[in-house]
Amino acid sequence: MNSALIIRILGSIGLVEAISMIPAWVIALAYGDGDGPAMLYSMLLTAAVAFLMYFFAHPKERTLRAREGFLIVALSWIFLSVFGALPFLFSGLLPSFPDALFESVSGFTTTGATVLPSFDFMPHGVIFWRSFTHWIGGMGVLVLTLALLPRLADRSSHLMRAESPGPSLSKLVPRIGDSAKILYMIYIALTSMEMIALLFCGLDPYDAAIHALGTAGTGGFSNYGDSVAHFQSGQVELVMTIFMCLFGINFAIFYFGIHRSWKEIRNNEELRWYLGILITAILVLTVMLLPVYGDFSSSIRYASFQTASVVSTSGFCTVDFDLWPVQARMVLFVLMFMGSCAGSTAGGMKVIRVILLLKQGHREIRHTFQPRKVQRIRLDGHGVDESMLHSISAFGFAYIFIVLLGAFLIALEGKYDLITNFTASLTCVSNVGPGFGAVGPSGSFAGYGPYAKIISSLLMLAGRLELYPLLVLFHPNVWKT
Amino acid sequence: MNSALIIRILGSIGLVEAISMIPAWVIALAYGDGDGPAMLYSMLLTAAVAFLMYFFAHPKERTLRAREGFLIVALSWIFLSVFGALPFLFSGLLPSFPDALFESVSGFTTTGATVLPSFDFMPHGVIFWRSFTHWIGGMGVLVLTLALLPRLADRSSHLMRAESPGPSLSKLVPRIGDSAKILYMIYIALTSMEMIALLFCGLDPYDAAIHALGTAGTGGFSNYGDSVAHFQSGQVELVMTIFMCLFGINFAIFYFGIHRSWKEIRNNEELRWYLGILITAILVLTVMLLPVYGDFSSSIRYASFQTASVVSTSGFCTVDFDLWPVQARMVLFVLMFMGSCAGSTAGGMKVIRVILLLKQGHREIRHTFQPRKVQRIRLDGHGVDESMLHSISAFGFAYIFIVLLGAFLIALEGKYDLITNFTASLTCVSNVGPGFGAVGPSGSFAGYGPYAKIISSLLMLAGRLELYPLLVLFHPNVWKT
Repeated sequence: MNSALIIRILGSIGLVEAISMIPAWVIALAYGDGDGPAMLYSMLLTAAVAFLMYFFAHPKERTLRAREGFLIVALSWIFLSVFGALPFLFSGLLPSFPDALFESVSGFTTTGATVLPSFDFMPHGVIFWRSFTHWIGGMGVLVLTLALLPRLADRSSHLMRAESPGPSLSKLVPRIGDSAKILYMIYIALTSMEMIALLFCGLDPYDAAIHALGTAGTGGFSNYGDSVAHFQSGQVELVMTIFMCLFGINFAIFYFGIHRSWKEIRNNEELRWYLGILITAILVLTVMLLPVYGDFSSSIRYASFQTASVVSTSGFCTVDFDLWPVQARMVLFVLMFMGSCAGSTAGGMKVIRVILLLKQGHREIRHTFQPRKVQRIRLDGHGVDESMLHSISAFGFAYIFIVLLGAFLIALEGKYDLITNFTASLTCVSNVGPGFGAVGPSGSFAGYGPYAKIISSLLMLAGRLELYPLLVLFHPNVWKT
Repeated sequence: MNSALIIRILGSIGLVEAISMIPAWVIALAYGDGDGPAMLYSMLLTAAVAFLMYFFAHPKERTLRAREGFLIVALSWIFLSVFGALPFLFSGLLPSFPDALFESVSGFTTTGATVLPSFDFMPHGVIFWRSFTHWIGGMGVLVLTLALLPRLADRSSHLMRAESPGPSLSKLVPRIGDSAKILYMIYIALTSMEMIALLFCGLDPYDAAIHALGTAGTGGFSNYGDSVAHFQSGQVELVMTIFMCLFGINFAIFYFGIHRSWKEIRNNEELRWYLGILITAILVLTVMLLPVYGDFSSSIRYASFQTASVVSTSGFCTVDFDLWPVQARMVLFVLMFMGSCAGSTAGGMKVIRVILLLKQGHREIRHTFQPRKVQRIRLDGHGVDESMLHSISAFGFAYIFIVLLGAFLIALEGKYDLITNFTASLTCVSNVGPGFGAVGPSGSFAGYGPYAKIISSLLMLAGRLELYPLLVLFHPNVWKT
């Protein structure tokens, strides 16, 4: 085990984190809500610890094996979350550590579930930091670190694969550092476009930034208790609906778009399914909501915002969907499992996995009555490798198993009903944000005790890292040297 | 497509069904509740239709392909359920056809969910028929038909495999007819033993028969509104707990026991897991129930009966577990997915599949950090074929997909809350009986409309036939000649 290298990489991530606290500190000073010192101390403490780790660890070699790659990813996200919790703690916004940690994990994992007891005291600096964690976590902090420090480790592909096992840009350009830079350029461009659009809708720059960062990371933190409903503006909702849908798309598609590779985009089956599912869900929900809202325009407005929010796993709300008819809630429940495209900032199982699982199911049914016919599963016009199909099934199972296990562990606290505990687990693993019942759009995780908050934090991390890096932590063999 | 052979086999199954209505008719005459004519007319109508089908279909050949095997199984269970609904209809117990069909399907699939509006009018003959359908359905009606009519079709292994795709006795003895006879002998012996034990506990012969038949098929219909709680007898509960656990064991184990093949029993991993899960669940629930019931003896009494009932997918109750603390309900919820051993009369995903899914998950985690190490999955000391693992994953997914789809389709009716609709689907697919909320132990499916009842009936059939035979019905290719 190359412990020195692991510590050094964790240190470098801590330095990146300390630097990324600067904007929030500046905003704290500008607004003068008294949270300047909290941001400053958090930044200094993070920088000091990270500095010690970075400069006193002297790795003898710079190669990483797969096991160490997974360990680094898991540990660095935990490290990031612990130090990211400091501003909440120091500012007195969330004085208990499990609360502050939950909020920080919820930010970095782009879940957007909150434990804030009220929205009365909202210091501008710390609240900006809260939304900025979405933006950092959306793209993945290792990608960022690798973009900044490309010579940190050889074979860093292990790291990127572990942080986001879906298709990545690494196939498009030969060097990983370059991929990371391209990804970040697209990310910054889209976020800026949304922020400008929101300014045009009449939002002040602070609100526009908070909601653009939250959309880009598909996070969902708002600085208002009633989320996006606060603005009471159809324009704002339309802009955010469009951008939530965009941030659920594989970033490779934007890269292809810039390079005018239309054929690649046309052939992308996941994109077609994603758009198809979005449109179908919006239409179905609109019909189901007609009796509730009375007219077509309100129904489609609420249906499309909430659908985009759940599918992109953002979790912004313009209405309490827990009050919708049961069949509409069931639609959202199923969408919470799925999430968006692989290679986007969104969570969930990912559309591509759901497609391949459905294709496998269809093949299995045909196989029962045509047992001798060999049936190859195709995607984007190419045959899919059987071993990939196998590992997707295993992933799907692990996903459902973790949701069930999480629901069970949360329920052990003995609070709330089955549906609250179950959707609390689901919404954490899928990084959506709100669930149903007490954790619905008008509720929060604040009512849970410290134990359930720690479990939920682990579930959010497991979901964001697509399970394995975090599961690996609990396997005894991984700690053997 | 060998339609003539399919019709002839359906006819023979109808004849078996007509004959199996005789005991209920005799009981109806003996008790004189006025349901004698209903039983008689049902029997005659079933026999007449079956007779016409059997004698007017002249198959040119007697070979069955896999496709036809699956079709026969699906169609014969639908056929069986439709004619099995006649007594409920003719006696006026359930005057609407969807209700009568639901009760019949619930009986044959050994689910035990009921739509009876009240337990005031319970004609002895029809109620006996209701419980007898559990007993017929538990072992599988095709097994019975093959035992009685061994020369009906060549390659009938397709049929037995389709009716119960788990391990079967066909490996133990060379001829399928013989296997069926051995299975039925064990079945009759165990049922008789339970009935005698219940008589010793002081039940009258009718009640003893009803509850022994319900336990043997792991069904769960009782002739009392408060199920087994009616007897207020610890002895009755103990006897039923033991027999529910026994009927969840693979029948091959009893065959080995008779032949004193102790080594085969000791090596059976599924049995060890099954017993381990049962004991663990009972202990965990006992601890969780201590604050509710106050003393250890009541807690373990209620915990063990309800656990045995849910794991064996019987669905008998001695207490309303929907009132238990949320963590205890979560335990039952998870157990509802699993069910008992393959090759038993119970439903659910089956313990053996759950074991192999967990082993695959464990392998996948190890694979992430030890990618070059080849890891073979072992069961009962032997390596498991990869293609079998693959089809188990596909089955597991299909299972969860059907539960979700079912919940969605039931929710479309717009009745009840999410947890009711979700567990209604789960309890139907797993053939348990009660769920949570409005379909909990003190509720029933009676509040649903005809549409949801038909959907639930299809879900119960899908669960009992382990999905594929019923899914095949909906695939367009299967109907191509």
